[in-house]
Amino acid sequence: MSSILDTIERPNDVKNVPEDKLPQLCKEIRRRILDTVSKNGGHLASNLGTVELTVALHRFLDLPKDQLIWDVGHQAYTHKILTGRKDSFYTLRRRGGISGFPKRKESPCDVIDTGHSSTSVSVAAGLAKARDLKGENNRIVAVIGDGSLSGGPAYEALNHAGRFKTNLIIILNDNEMSISKNVGAMANYLRKARMSVNYIDLKSNVEQKLNKTSLGARIANRIKKMKAAIRFMFVPGEFFTEMGIAYYGPVDGHNIAEMEKALKAASRIRGAVLIHCVTKKGKGYQFAEADPSKFHGTPPFDPKNGDPVGLPIKETYTDVFRDEIVRIGKEHPEVAAITAAMSDGTGLDSFRKQFPSRFFDVGIAEGHAASFAAGLSINGMHPVIAVYSTFLQRAYDEIMEEICLNDRPVTLAIDRSGIVGSDGETHQGLFDIAFLSHMPGMTVMAPRNGEELRTMLRYAVTLEGPNAVRYPKGSKDLKALPVEVSPIRYGKAEVLRKGSETAILFLGTLGEEAMGVRNILKEHGTDASVVNARFAAPFDKEMIRELSKTHNLLVTIEEGVRTGGFGERVAAFVMEERLPMKVLICAMPDAFQAQASQQEIREACGLTASAIADKVLRYGTNV
Amino acid sequence: MSSILDTIERPNDVKNVPEDKLPQLCKEIRRRILDTVSKNGGHLASNLGTVELTVALHRFLDLPKDQLIWDVGHQAYTHKILTGRKDSFYTLRRRGGISGFPKRKESPCDVIDTGHSSTSVSVAAGLAKARDLKGENNRIVAVIGDGSLSGGPAYEALNHAGRFKTNLIIILNDNEMSISKNVGAMANYLRKARMSVNYIDLKSNVEQKLNKTSLGARIANRIKKMKAAIRFMFVPGEFFTEMGIAYYGPVDGHNIAEMEKALKAASRIRGAVLIHCVTKKGKGYQFAEADPSKFHGTPPFDPKNGDPVGLPIKETYTDVFRDEIVRIGKEHPEVAAITAAMSDGTGLDSFRKQFPSRFFDVGIAEGHAASFAAGLSINGMHPVIAVYSTFLQRAYDEIMEEICLNDRPVTLAIDRSGIVGSDGETHQGLFDIAFLSHMPGMTVMAPRNGEELRTMLRYAVTLEGPNAVRYPKGSKDLKALPVEVSPIRYGKAEVLRKGSETAILFLGTLGEEAMGVRNILKEHGTDASVVNARFAAPFDKEMIRELSKTHNLLVTIEEGVRTGGFGERVAAFVMEERLPMKVLICAMPDAFQAQASQQEIREACGLTASAIADKVLRYGTNV
Repeated sequence: MSSILDTIERPNDVKNVPEDKLPQLCKEIRRRILDTVSKNGGHLASNLGTVELTVALHRFLDLPKDQLIWDVGHQAYTHKILTGRKDSFYTLRRRGGISGFPKRKESPCDVIDTGHSSTSVSVAAGLAKARDLKGENNRIVAVIGDGSLSGGPAYEALNHAGRFKTNLIIILNDNEMSISKNVGAMANYLRKARMSVNYIDLKSNVEQKLNKTSLGARIANRIKKMKAAIRFMFVPGEFFTEMGIAYYGPVDGHNIAEMEKALKAASRIRGAVLIHCVTKKGKGYQFAEADPSKFHGTPPFDPKNGDPVGLPIKETYTDVFRDEIVRIGKEHPEVAAITAAMSDGTGLDSFRKQFPSRFFDVGIAEGHAASFAAGLSINGMHPVIAVYSTFLQRAYDEIMEEICLNDRPVTLAIDRSGIVGSDGETHQGLFDIAFLSHMPGMTVMAPRNGEELRTMLRYAVTLEGPNAVRYPKGSKDLKALPVEVSPIRYGKAEVLRKGSETAILFLGTLGEEAMGVRNILKEHGTDASVVNARFAAPFDKEMIRELSKTHNLLVTIEEGVRTGGFGERVAAFVMEERLPMKVLICAMPDAFQAQASQQEIREACGLTASAIADKVLRYGTNV
Repeated sequence: MSSILDTIERPNDVKNVPEDKLPQLCKEIRRRILDTVSKNGGHLASNLGTVELTVALHRFLDLPKDQLIWDVGHQAYTHKILTGRKDSFYTLRRRGGISGFPKRKESPCDVIDTGHSSTSVSVAAGLAKARDLKGENNRIVAVIGDGSLSGGPAYEALNHAGRFKTNLIIILNDNEMSISKNVGAMANYLRKARMSVNYIDLKSNVEQKLNKTSLGARIANRIKKMKAAIRFMFVPGEFFTEMGIAYYGPVDGHNIAEMEKALKAASRIRGAVLIHCVTKKGKGYQFAEADPSKFHGTPPFDPKNGDPVGLPIKETYTDVFRDEIVRIGKEHPEVAAITAAMSDGTGLDSFRKQFPSRFFDVGIAEGHAASFAAGLSINGMHPVIAVYSTFLQRAYDEIMEEICLNDRPVTLAIDRSGIVGSDGETHQGLFDIAFLSHMPGMTVMAPRNGEELRTMLRYAVTLEGPNAVRYPKGSKDLKALPVEVSPIRYGKAEVLRKGSETAILFLGTLGEEAMGVRNILKEHGTDASVVNARFAAPFDKEMIRELSKTHNLLVTIEEGVRTGGFGERVAAFVMEERLPMKVLICAMPDAFQAQASQQEIREACGLTASAIADKVLRYGTNV
């Protein structure tokens, strides 16, 4: 059988595929996705679920004139394959290769670079308004999952978009995660009536027509009242119905013909329209259909059985957290755990099972998570919010106001801090040191190995103010020597090697690098001290004053952006105190970091032992 | 007539007031609020609107055992008057006096310190869950306005609270701002049926009862299907109906007896209940009723006619922005303006009138504002988001991801940056330099006077990347000399006085202080240079290198927190470059700043010419 996919070179080529060949095309696309993700890792279940939906959208739209926005963006593989990237697709998530998320630099069909949830409707609304102002008429479609719709920004956008009469199509990609079978069946029954163009015309014109006669006006008025009454009877508050978004569906998201029909119908409506389509995560690959959560984001695996391949999976910091938070929960009945739809990813699944009443999954709603935690803590609980560094950015204001201003003892367990690797720009955890350290009263800690993570977590839940423990993705330095960890004292660093001349002050899991620098410097005749900072805020000023008595150079190392980071604060302190010591800052550049392996990024940014040692030696000869 | 208010000394005293005396009590409370706000300034309209609502809540609740959360918190004056603060109320908003917002340190009846919108339901949900876990049974009530309900965090919280069966009462304080007369009338008709306890019982038990017989079960099933059908027909998407919050109302929020009845009925429900009550902003004071927006936050005024009193209102930075943005709009058809429900406060009212199609009020939704702006800019517009510094914190993640990562030319016009004065902790604009400067690609500017604000705004809308212009509340240094402004060059500072030994590098409207420092130093024999930084990010490294050739001390001055701020970055740069110059950082301490006048806070934080000069002289003798 000849390949249909081979005929698709450019955007819109999919329109030329005869309807009866579409199932084969979808099969080939699924094959390509499965082949690539099983080798490179990536998002599988969500992409297998959106194959037909994407084909239908591409047959309906004229890309790149029309604009298609993917919420989060991890479900855009088919979109990439259909827009000139099918041959380079095998480079997915590799350094210099195809990104796992939309990227404007890859194709004019990628409208915006994204990776965080719930913003697609906002962006699409902006695109639509600008289009109208320019008098243009291209189509604009946002695709958003039912999970993303739980985020506040999506609601803010719907609330706005429903008010202005701008043409905009919103595809609600309902993964059958939050929809019960019962409602699904009911919905199917309603579908035909709702999907016909006649119904739409009726709906938008009925009042207008009825108002032409006085009897009609009375009927229209009664219908209006009845509508409102019914809303009041069954809807949790009238404000939702004010949104003014037309609703279509549900549609079978795996039925291309039906989806195309829905899109055509929707495009005849003035204003914002939401098409509710139902898809199945992992569709077409039995192991992903059976366990879509496992195949949401997956490492390389054997497509024959779905089992991970390659290196044996090592214990990670997430595993340490998973284990320790349960122990803490046993000893501390006041500890509660909160996740924003990341129970498995953050390792809170164990706590959820052990202490279901003290476990809260708030949905994709980091801001709410922070305020909710403040409330829990006012009434005597100690909440631990387990969250990826990059997604914590969403809660910046709530951490500041509800948690810090109220000096609430809440612990932020920040996973995926620092470099994360192949998810790229939107998933690196490079800003948390900077944005948390300037919050008054916030304590920011970072462990140097797994044992210290345990110790820090136990310590964190006893603190009386807001605090954060940041740790990286994976296993880096998990067993770093010395394994034993000295007791934590508030705001105090830990000296690992006592030397002279040069002191290396590292934050978090960069101890091996620090020791490596020490070894290289030794070859050049310097016996450097190595100090584990432990606290980024407040940092150990006493220790720095002490170091300045016997060292003339202090080298700081951290895996976060330079501006507003740990090193800058240390340097400013040394400067203002006029300590007799220079400071050399080794941090990540003030830039977004594209996909690559963690180690590749570390090397590119000069955060390896040899690069740091080189920098120190160059700086040293320059005194 | 004897005073009823005099009999209210402690929380819960209001329960002893006979029902027929309540109108008089409310009158006296209104008088006290009006007297105080007309002298001290403050939030008038919202507080006059919540007098009866608060009295009803205090008669229903047992404070502080029961917990009452005010969204934003600017409507809690009556709450304060009824909880032991009626005699100190005259100190409202003054240094050391009663805060205009809830403050835990003032009273155990103030549960949480707030000032930002849309978080009350989150906090209340947390309080309620912790209460349940402890096996306690106090009542928890959140009061939220219809405006605050447009914020995403409120939606996230409702979405969560509706899922768990925890008792929680949410008062929707509907100011008749977003509700049309028609719906209001309809709603009134529904009220009686909805408010009866019988109806509630029916609603929560009907399915259970029907399911006892097979015919009943079939009916229950049909009702279920019908409910779903009706939802699908009239509701913009099924996900909203999933929230599971019981709805009561609307209730007349000025009718204490009716409110008490509603509260009693609501407290018999298991789970979360929303009471929709309708109030009138400014109630009881004709000028505020007629123009609630003018009396939302007001300076001191003459209660007889509502006219401002005291010093003549000077032109402010907001006025300059109001004027200049219209001029810019005329010349730049691509410039669009966005506000998050602050059209008047930010000065965008003028732009709205002149260019209604290019003006967008997105509601209290700063995050959406940022993503929406990114969308507008992708399709060729240059959006200007006019926003108060403190509220911009809500959009941290969206500025980072949608705007900076995508390198969108969007201008943030940041009003109320730096010290704001009597609104206190939650309204100071002290973090914007820190949280914006570490965003890759973000340009952060601050003008030294009104003329420079004009020039910077014109410059900002021509930049090709994300940028921000921050300026303060009021008129500080608005006419600072020299009035004429030299052309702005990207990333370049402006030398105002050329001297030697000491250089003073100030950011924003601290030029008079810088010149004052220079004058004092002159008396001590030093001829200091004075430099206007203009750019906080990127800062002028070339200039600093130049200064280091002829100066041995660089003094930085900024009105923002020290950590992650401008001065720290400059100091770290000078340190790493080993420039032969010391740096002395004059910034705001890393702390929240309580209410006081702007000048009082500046003095307390050492940001006056004499305090800075003292610091320089002390530092100088210490070399």
